[in-house]
Amino acid sequence: MIQRVPPNSTKKPTRVAAPIQRERILQAAATLFAKQGYHGTGIEELSQQVELGRGGLYYHIGNKESVLAEICRVNVTEMIAVGTEIRDGAGSAEERFRALAAKLMRNIADHIPEWTVFFRDFIALSGARLEEVLELRQGFEQIVKDILEEGISSRELRDLDPIAVKGVLGQFNYAYLWIRPSGRLEPEQVAEIFCDSLFVGLRSP
Amino acid sequence: MIQRVPPNSTKKPTRVAAPIQRERILQAAATLFAKQGYHGTGIEELSQQVELGRGGLYYHIGNKESVLAEICRVNVTEMIAVGTEIRDGAGSAEERFRALAAKLMRNIADHIPEWTVFFRDFIALSGARLEEVLELRQGFEQIVKDILEEGISSRELRDLDPIAVKGVLGQFNYAYLWIRPSGRLEPEQVAEIFCDSLFVGLRSP
Repeated sequence: MIQRVPPNSTKKPTRVAAPIQRERILQAAATLFAKQGYHGTGIEELSQQVELGRGGLYYHIGNKESVLAEICRVNVTEMIAVGTEIRDGAGSAEERFRALAAKLMRNIADHIPEWTVFFRDFIALSGARLEEVLELRQGFEQIVKDILEEGISSRELRDLDPIAVKGVLGQFNYAYLWIRPSGRLEPEQVAEIFCDSLFVGLRSP
Repeated sequence: MIQRVPPNSTKKPTRVAAPIQRERILQAAATLFAKQGYHGTGIEELSQQVELGRGGLYYHIGNKESVLAEICRVNVTEMIAVGTEIRDGAGSAEERFRALAAKLMRNIADHIPEWTVFFRDFIALSGARLEEVLELRQGFEQIVKDILEEGISSRELRDLDPIAVKGVLGQFNYAYLWIRPSGRLEPEQVAEIFCDSLFVGLRSP
């Protein structure tokens, strides 16, 4: 489990352990990037926000692009870990998909700035960093595919064109643009409603 | 119908009519913004790309933010026109939804840079321009909602929580991130596969 500092704690606490310092910088950077765009945010601005000099910032996290890479990595990596456990665990394909959907929607709702940066600013990465993030995205998609394909093989689910997984994922991934943590429904309830449409279909019985 | 110049024609033709000049600028700007981000693209770069001085650029389209606003407006406005006609036309809710989904997927696949900018860089807009784009997005969503709600009222479709429309839309809106015009399937075929999952559901009969 990744240790997180509470929201609104981007001010520098006195004598913080390095991993918490690092986490605090990433959170502040994600908020700035999400609001103004990666290219619209200067390293100077981030440096002021977290009350660290450039040297301190570099010590904890490296340059601006490595901050972006880390923001893009952290939540999808967590979702791959969660997803692998669910995929390899017990239950029907539908049950496992529903469990994963609930975790994904919760993760998106809890980390909107990070997912905004992930979907929007990843193209600002270059070389090995860009490849890594694309592979991570692909890795998570593969877990969803695996669960659906197991369901198709066992005839629990209808035969689907492989492209269908993109639509299924889009339902959830698009949520970073509209879901709010204080909304009428909990993220898990939203995921449940989406899964109901998805598995049972929209047509009247 | 909005007149469009063919792709790869961002070089300045000799003596072009103003509306075509304008369209050419917008297309070049959308491509640059999609690749580098709005904040990552200077007006100087756009000016060089279309071989017009700042004065000419300003004459045709105004400042950088008004270029962004126009890119964000154009395709969703077209989709609202198309969607209104489909919504008010003949057919069951499912038939009309399918017709709209095919048009939307085609529009996204044909204008990936513009939709990328629409979903990603709209937050760089301010004041009335931002409000207008948010209203346009809301306007298109309302058309989809209207069609689904008519289907629910007539008992053609199951009763759905209003949030379900966000999932339904997400299937299509997420496509700007992965669909390619030269893919294995035509955009209309992708829309059909998505609609099959959506209306019939994933479960085996």
